[in-house]
Amino acid sequence: MYREEIKVLDCTVRDGGLMNKWQFSDDFVKAVYNACVESGIDYMEIGYKSSEKAYSRKENGAWKFCEEKDLRRIMGNNDTNLKIAAMCDIGRIDDEDIQLKSESVIDMIRVACYVPQVDKAIHLAEHCMDKGYEATINLMAVSTVMERDLDEALNDLSKSKVPTVYLVDSFGSMYCEQIDLLAKKYHDALPDKTLGIHAHNNMQLAFSNTITSIINNINMLDSTMLGLGRGAGNCCTELLLSFLKNPKYKLGPIYKVIQEYLAPMQKDIDWGYHIPYLITGANNLHPKSAMEWMESDKKNDIVTFFNKTIDFKEL
Amino acid sequence: MYREEIKVLDCTVRDGGLMNKWQFSDDFVKAVYNACVESGIDYMEIGYKSSEKAYSRKENGAWKFCEEKDLRRIMGNNDTNLKIAAMCDIGRIDDEDIQLKSESVIDMIRVACYVPQVDKAIHLAEHCMDKGYEATINLMAVSTVMERDLDEALNDLSKSKVPTVYLVDSFGSMYCEQIDLLAKKYHDALPDKTLGIHAHNNMQLAFSNTITSIINNINMLDSTMLGLGRGAGNCCTELLLSFLKNPKYKLGPIYKVIQEYLAPMQKDIDWGYHIPYLITGANNLHPKSAMEWMESDKKNDIVTFFNKTIDFKEL
Repeated sequence: MYREEIKVLDCTVRDGGLMNKWQFSDDFVKAVYNACVESGIDYMEIGYKSSEKAYSRKENGAWKFCEEKDLRRIMGNNDTNLKIAAMCDIGRIDDEDIQLKSESVIDMIRVACYVPQVDKAIHLAEHCMDKGYEATINLMAVSTVMERDLDEALNDLSKSKVPTVYLVDSFGSMYCEQIDLLAKKYHDALPDKTLGIHAHNNMQLAFSNTITSIINNINMLDSTMLGLGRGAGNCCTELLLSFLKNPKYKLGPIYKVIQEYLAPMQKDIDWGYHIPYLITGANNLHPKSAMEWMESDKKNDIVTFFNKTIDFKEL
Repeated sequence: MYREEIKVLDCTVRDGGLMNKWQFSDDFVKAVYNACVESGIDYMEIGYKSSEKAYSRKENGAWKFCEEKDLRRIMGNNDTNLKIAAMCDIGRIDDEDIQLKSESVIDMIRVACYVPQVDKAIHLAEHCMDKGYEATINLMAVSTVMERDLDEALNDLSKSKVPTVYLVDSFGSMYCEQIDLLAKKYHDALPDKTLGIHAHNNMQLAFSNTITSIINNINMLDSTMLGLGRGAGNCCTELLLSFLKNPKYKLGPIYKVIQEYLAPMQKDIDWGYHIPYLITGANNLHPKSAMEWMESDKKNDIVTFFNKTIDFKEL
């Protein structure tokens, strides 16, 4: 019933931190880490590797930077089967900020980039591989890219050493037929590479799009506990593990951390299905206008947000 | 881009009333009715036709019974393009409780039944047709039925006069591959009939399963505003109308009633994505145990609900 190649990557802390600038307590991060270990999840993405030249320490919590001392405070030397991942954004980190894998508890570096940045991303990801890390490239916002440009980016990726490429639905604007088509396109262009999926839940389709990806032989699956993530959030880890039939995955530890940490957090952070996020997703727009609306005192005035969005298409 | 045969049926009041025994204010029901009219929705299912012998008036609001005087208080003679539907449960109403269509503002009667009740359902639906109504049969809980029994029920339906049959995912336990298979089975068995889909959202798949149904030439689509419905609720009307490209559908009136009525109602009624509903859906169980849990003072103790459910499989 299950496919051994499938790996689950929980990015609760990394993607969730986009909602509170990674101002998480150590207790929370430890609880998520322990749940990942106990539930048999394959990778935990704990945050971003960023340069302090790009972001302020005052505004952003530890997981925007993922310094070694912070990582080890949570997980010691991580003597477990769980692998640790961190994400890099192009232009927010320099090659020399990446230390050797032999000095780090991080196992995998995922390089996020937009299509025009793909050559920079290949450079950085190969640099990370040279330093001993696993590496992926996560090609963002492909729902707004012209097909010829996407094809050229995939062609560049096909020539790179990077073994894993992600299909990313940054705006939560895709449904199954689009995932089908893009999965086929990525497989055709990258026949020797592992593919991954990172979905957003603006239209309540993140889990469904992840299932469609599984059906299309995509094997690296991103999810977050209770869907915590930017805007509408992500494919829920508890849904994904309920669906996968691999007996190595256990749901109990996930429900425990949801009960103790994630569910109470919903009082303070408005992630999940909210109409402004649906409106940006359905219109293939970046969620930033919806996030600003949700943070304002007008957040319940969805009629005004709808009229404003369909009039102006704030791309 | 759009398929003319598609009809949207909003059952916010009917399915939503399962969460509060139809104790809705007239203002709310009028607001939903007006939104259906203004948004171009095809059918509004306003409640159940039930006998007062089966249910108490004290416990249940007007929309458990759908008496003519109550209907007309909301919509007068309903001089609009919106058609009005009401649902009947087998055994909860007698033939003589159905008045002639010429005396009613109801246009369509939908008969809900379990597979062993299909012959009774055919009798009641054909009786309604003889009295002048459109009629459908909604075959519930097919995720727990043996294939031979389902095939026999579909064979019985194929010989009936009833023109429309619904695929119903009562437990919110299905995903796209199951919808694909069942849609093909229903089409093969019922080549001359219109098919409908009624999905529940336990695994955040109600909208996705409705899209899969559309792809499979299912044309009657049930939805509810903000997903209000039993347990995890239904496919959201606002998601469905955002997806359908038919210019006759307007989203503004739906967002207005969500803002003014549905969103505030979330403070009092716990429908939508909650872990106990996911747990029953993922295990193909009736949501009643999850609904009881959500109504108890233990509702936040999802770990205990999970352990109890996977140990005992309360079918």
